[in-house]
Amino acid sequence: MKRRSFLKGSAAAGLASTAVASPAIAQSMPELKWRLAASWPKSLDHLWGAVELFARTIGELTDNRFQIRPSAAGEIVPPLQVLDAVQAGTIEMGHSIGNYYFGKEVALAFDTGVPFGLNMRGHLCWLNHGGGIELMREVYKNYGVVTYVMGGTGAQMGGWYRKEINTVEDLNGLKFRVSGFPGRILTKLGVVPQTLAAGDVYPALERGAIDAVELVGPYDDEKLGFNKVAKYYYYPAWWEGGTSQTLYINDKAYDSLPPAYRKLVNTVADYVTQWMIGALRPDQPAGAAPAGASGTVLKPFPRPVLDACYKATLQTYDEMSAQSPAFKKIYEAWNAFRAEEQLWFRVAENSFDSFMYTQSARQ
Amino acid sequence: MKRRSFLKGSAAAGLASTAVASPAIAQSMPELKWRLAASWPKSLDHLWGAVELFARTIGELTDNRFQIRPSAAGEIVPPLQVLDAVQAGTIEMGHSIGNYYFGKEVALAFDTGVPFGLNMRGHLCWLNHGGGIELMREVYKNYGVVTYVMGGTGAQMGGWYRKEINTVEDLNGLKFRVSGFPGRILTKLGVVPQTLAAGDVYPALERGAIDAVELVGPYDDEKLGFNKVAKYYYYPAWWEGGTSQTLYINDKAYDSLPPAYRKLVNTVADYVTQWMIGALRPDQPAGAAPAGASGTVLKPFPRPVLDACYKATLQTYDEMSAQSPAFKKIYEAWNAFRAEEQLWFRVAENSFDSFMYTQSARQ
Repeated sequence: MKRRSFLKGSAAAGLASTAVASPAIAQSMPELKWRLAASWPKSLDHLWGAVELFARTIGELTDNRFQIRPSAAGEIVPPLQVLDAVQAGTIEMGHSIGNYYFGKEVALAFDTGVPFGLNMRGHLCWLNHGGGIELMREVYKNYGVVTYVMGGTGAQMGGWYRKEINTVEDLNGLKFRVSGFPGRILTKLGVVPQTLAAGDVYPALERGAIDAVELVGPYDDEKLGFNKVAKYYYYPAWWEGGTSQTLYINDKAYDSLPPAYRKLVNTVADYVTQWMIGALRPDQPAGAAPAGASGTVLKPFPRPVLDACYKATLQTYDEMSAQSPAFKKIYEAWNAFRAEEQLWFRVAENSFDSFMYTQSARQ
Repeated sequence: MKRRSFLKGSAAAGLASTAVASPAIAQSMPELKWRLAASWPKSLDHLWGAVELFARTIGELTDNRFQIRPSAAGEIVPPLQVLDAVQAGTIEMGHSIGNYYFGKEVALAFDTGVPFGLNMRGHLCWLNHGGGIELMREVYKNYGVVTYVMGGTGAQMGGWYRKEINTVEDLNGLKFRVSGFPGRILTKLGVVPQTLAAGDVYPALERGAIDAVELVGPYDDEKLGFNKVAKYYYYPAWWEGGTSQTLYINDKAYDSLPPAYRKLVNTVADYVTQWMIGALRPDQPAGAAPAGASGTVLKPFPRPVLDACYKATLQTYDEMSAQSPAFKKIYEAWNAFRAEEQLWFRVAENSFDSFMYTQSARQ
């Protein structure tokens, strides 16, 4: 405040005003050119769209003084090595998910969202207001990055299955393309998790090399044609009730940012999250409706199957807590938050939603 | 882009660079001092907090070149006349809700959220991605303002009642302090809606001049002491399943803004929405838990009561459509969006939530 008053005093001298103001702007809004590598191909339009929106908005709000050049998966950095590249300082920023680095540290899964966890609003609330992001940053500090929440996908679908899942026994021997954390849980029930790049799934499913696959939701899944080779579409993805993506910034690069740019990054990242959660939604029903028409059978997982998966999940949490002190610490804090959150949500939010869905089912 | 290349060319001349850059900044980021009047007292910390966060962030991101001075309810403008003051140009900006101006035009209710409407995510999705804000701006144009969504409260509670509501008949003759739109619906079921300022509710409820009151949720309601004079706390507020607040900008003031400031206002308003939805939540369970302990009986509205209210709501929608062409137009578009939205939400989101709440109820 004092600095600005001083500047105003000088400005009173007359024409010098614009010239005098400029060093302050130059100092608080320096010209920067940064690179941001994403884990997503350009074809995943919401994830890639989030990255583009972020870069464009930062430019617009700084009169293009802070320029961020985004690159898609594999252009500069392989999709699963974004964290490593930001840590090394090869690039200043990355957009990815903690789940991809689960092999380095299982606790990073909490940054993305964990099985039988919080829904979208609850997860964002935990990260931004429930102490979550502070806990995650303690872990990420070991990888030389500062993080912000950027993007969210809501509850996902449980995947496409060639055969019905009627009992817990039907999971036994199932070759299921599924991500790391739920994969580890499902092995307890006899599932054989498969790791396949998205582009390799269709042929494997078609020839029966795998029995089932989960990816995102109707919009993305049907682009890949899964509905043509697997009849049963199950819900929900109990391992992805509400997931978010993360913006990584190299810590030395972050330290070099003036306060206005730090605030800008935070503000725009939240703006992008808000955009993405909304943008993803209107596209989903368009995908779900043809699914029903084209012979797809849409089914909820049977309750005993969900119960068995839930039990196996709690066991896995205990095992991971024993394996990683970081996981244990975060799990305990997160679990306390979850109990409180669900106590409130169960009352007003869920009673409202349930009534509305019953009405909508009647129509 | 061309302009910037040109500037860079000049900058290459040497020391002149900062001085040369300054006219561009001065043009795109002029010094402005605006006033913003809110409809909220400072005691409603999330609503007032949203206003303060907005003003502070705009200042931080412009090196204080764009200064917004917020004022609380009644300081400059009476709380229910914020729209009028922005229209008149007395102030450049306001923070309020469309529902307060329901008397001018019933269609403005859609801006806030309507009875048996969308939940928080659905409502924001409709406004920001489903064509909602464009429809609302057409209506607000008649009042000389440009709008942005800023803030959201999630599903609210159905209020405090001195007697149990067991049947539809129990609503007959009930003197209920409730806002305009649900009040109009409830008259069909014999309710006598009451208009009282928040500060006058406690004594009226204590001496039995009114039978029931709805305000927000446990956090705010218990500050006002309703739990001490009414035993039954019902849920959900079917008239407020997901509500948002609105930032008003005088249209001439808006037209005078450079593009970077327009984008800034949009970005920061979404950032504030994201903040508020999260911030409001962790406070609610703290209120709900003591409610149970202090003799309050927490109850869902009986299903036949909800069904009767739903039926009366659909009738009221038809009446309002006949009364206002703007209402009719928006209702039809909104209703189509709602059907699609619920089709998708019922599948993945609700099946996930319902399972989790059952688990949480077992604990």
